[in-house]
Amino acid sequence: MRQSKLFTKTFKEAPKDEVSINAQLLIRGGFVDKVMAGVYTYLPLGLRVLNKIKNIIREEIDAVGGQEILMPALSPKENWEKTGRWAGLDVLFKLEGAGGKEYALGASHEEIVTPLVQKYAASYKDFPVCVYQIQDKFRNEPRAKSGLLRGREFSMKDMYSFHSNEEDLDRYYNQVIKAYFNIYNRCGLGSITHLVFSSGGTFSRYSHEFQTLAEDGEDTIYLCQACGVGVNKEIISEQQSCPECGGKDLKEKKSIEVGNIFKLKTKYSEAFDYEFTDEDGNRRTVLMGCYGIGPSRVMGSMVEVYHDKNGIIWPESVAPFAAHLVSLCKNGAQIKQADDIYESLLRKKIDVLYDDRLEISAGQKFADSDLFGIPKRIIVSPKTLERRSVEIKNRGEEKTILLKINNL
Amino acid sequence: MRQSKLFTKTFKEAPKDEVSINAQLLIRGGFVDKVMAGVYTYLPLGLRVLNKIKNIIREEIDAVGGQEILMPALSPKENWEKTGRWAGLDVLFKLEGAGGKEYALGASHEEIVTPLVQKYAASYKDFPVCVYQIQDKFRNEPRAKSGLLRGREFSMKDMYSFHSNEEDLDRYYNQVIKAYFNIYNRCGLGSITHLVFSSGGTFSRYSHEFQTLAEDGEDTIYLCQACGVGVNKEIISEQQSCPECGGKDLKEKKSIEVGNIFKLKTKYSEAFDYEFTDEDGNRRTVLMGCYGIGPSRVMGSMVEVYHDKNGIIWPESVAPFAAHLVSLCKNGAQIKQADDIYESLLRKKIDVLYDDRLEISAGQKFADSDLFGIPKRIIVSPKTLERRSVEIKNRGEEKTILLKINNL
Repeated sequence: MRQSKLFTKTFKEAPKDEVSINAQLLIRGGFVDKVMAGVYTYLPLGLRVLNKIKNIIREEIDAVGGQEILMPALSPKENWEKTGRWAGLDVLFKLEGAGGKEYALGASHEEIVTPLVQKYAASYKDFPVCVYQIQDKFRNEPRAKSGLLRGREFSMKDMYSFHSNEEDLDRYYNQVIKAYFNIYNRCGLGSITHLVFSSGGTFSRYSHEFQTLAEDGEDTIYLCQACGVGVNKEIISEQQSCPECGGKDLKEKKSIEVGNIFKLKTKYSEAFDYEFTDEDGNRRTVLMGCYGIGPSRVMGSMVEVYHDKNGIIWPESVAPFAAHLVSLCKNGAQIKQADDIYESLLRKKIDVLYDDRLEISAGQKFADSDLFGIPKRIIVSPKTLERRSVEIKNRGEEKTILLKINNL
Repeated sequence: MRQSKLFTKTFKEAPKDEVSINAQLLIRGGFVDKVMAGVYTYLPLGLRVLNKIKNIIREEIDAVGGQEILMPALSPKENWEKTGRWAGLDVLFKLEGAGGKEYALGASHEEIVTPLVQKYAASYKDFPVCVYQIQDKFRNEPRAKSGLLRGREFSMKDMYSFHSNEEDLDRYYNQVIKAYFNIYNRCGLGSITHLVFSSGGTFSRYSHEFQTLAEDGEDTIYLCQACGVGVNKEIISEQQSCPECGGKDLKEKKSIEVGNIFKLKTKYSEAFDYEFTDEDGNRRTVLMGCYGIGPSRVMGSMVEVYHDKNGIIWPESVAPFAAHLVSLCKNGAQIKQADDIYESLLRKKIDVLYDDRLEISAGQKFADSDLFGIPKRIIVSPKTLERRSVEIKNRGEEKTILLKINNL
């Protein structure tokens, strides 16, 4: 894409009301625009990153048999009354429609997905069923000061699994843990993301969070120095040892929660009287698990972790473009040569942003490029063209190399 | 995909409260599930169709320079008060959040996109700017009985263009008309979709709708027999001739609105004091156009138009799968051969649904296949295998041909 066509611009200063690094850099770079606290518009550069994260999640969840669906945000009060969450979930947005009918905006979707799957899966032969969606969630958060990390509207991949027995739920739950680590690995967060034991609520001893280490993280976790799993505050106040390996050396760290999974067991299936017929013809209650990961929160976390004083440093897998071709050419013949390089990169299917702007200084172009955080910068200038070359620099490194245009 | 893995099933009967053909067939086939009036979940088969329609729209809108963004559904009351639509738009969903803050759910996005683009485009050199999103819209419809045709939550591609002069707005508006016809052509609706003149509101003489002819359509249009454009009821009561060619022979038809475009001119830019600096350094008000097309409504319209008594007949471009491989094989060696055909189709990158279910009768399999409406049916049975062949039938046609497996 030609940068001259991009309607967004960069800003030197972040808005004064944004305290988080992720919001500051994403707004300055024109990745997102703040509509109000906790509510953002994704601009062309930001939407590219968000969609790449969503597609990584989609591929890994499809690989563990997830079937993608799309549930509505708007849902009837009755469903939420059945589970007690109409009154019990304080962040639930409620609204009234024509004829006095009351609705909730989906904060999560157990109330919709349980009666949905109930219509289709009634025999032990039908299980397991694993369905997921990638969709905006709405939560009436009293505080929303962390940019993409805590939104009132934010994107979420939420998956729900349905099982005929506990062994199968356990098996699938462990399979999803692996799929989640595949996702974090592919997003460049694998080495700093830990499985963390947290309270399981009424139905299970533990649930699990995925926590990414980050200096400005809102959460505190305690990492087992023996096996690398963590526990959250709640668990460490109950027990002073690692629930995985029994290790006693737990080290306090700041982190950001980038995913969580629960064994819901029969909590929601009971609320909807969701039973199935087992091998012996008996009626039994369906078991459920739920698995959440927020693409927008993952995006914000990456910025928190991967940036320097000049801007963002995107991992290749989610960068808005693979390469940033920055042209400092001013006269016709040179511009033609820069255009040719751009066209040849496009022909090679390289996803490239081409800074073809004429009235912008080299300094401003480099500042924009650093802010954008595209992994590879390719500079074409009168000086490099004299040597039939371009200069290549990786974002986050100082070293530059000169490469013959023919070898590009 | 193996049909044995698909969690949805087909239903013989449509729900009694669904009066529209599109909802009846889509629910029976397991494409959508009704959550409540005007609100549907897209199931795996339905989401495939919806995404294909969205991608066709995306490609054609990108081709006319649209830049994709993603705005939130949640938006602050203040923005809607500025344009008078907080009080004036009767279908606007309103809700209250933490601290008594009031929000609207986006029914359309002029109130968000205008102040957004205002932050970035301030000089005549910055125009035109054309941004769009594909996102769910919310409208508090008093009646929502038409399946996907009139929803309380429904998908929408809404584009907004910003211009420094009227000639450029006119030029772009005409370009979008062509892009829209490209979309309808690719969705198989081109030959029955007409440009229809409708009232332009305060700012323009006309706006335009795109209307697809359909027996059960909610709308009435009057088609000029000379040039093929239409006028809606409002226009025909003002003038008895075609606004395009002056023709007097206007024929009444039933139709479904599948898109609409407006020259908003300065209606919203004035509300937000959105001015730019022109070539001479003068401040002038920005001109706007808006362009809507609903992927879910297009999907519903297709079903209304393309079905028979047995089910849906999808155009190839949006069908959930290109081919439906229906196996009637029961014993191990035959099943192995059917599996091999499936694998070889996958290797050829053919998007195929494989009915590998063992306990389902041939009659039920054919009934499901007709209901699904996948363009090509490939039957593999003990009988066809004897002749090392499969039987091929196009949906909506009677003729079958026998094809050697080697030639598949």
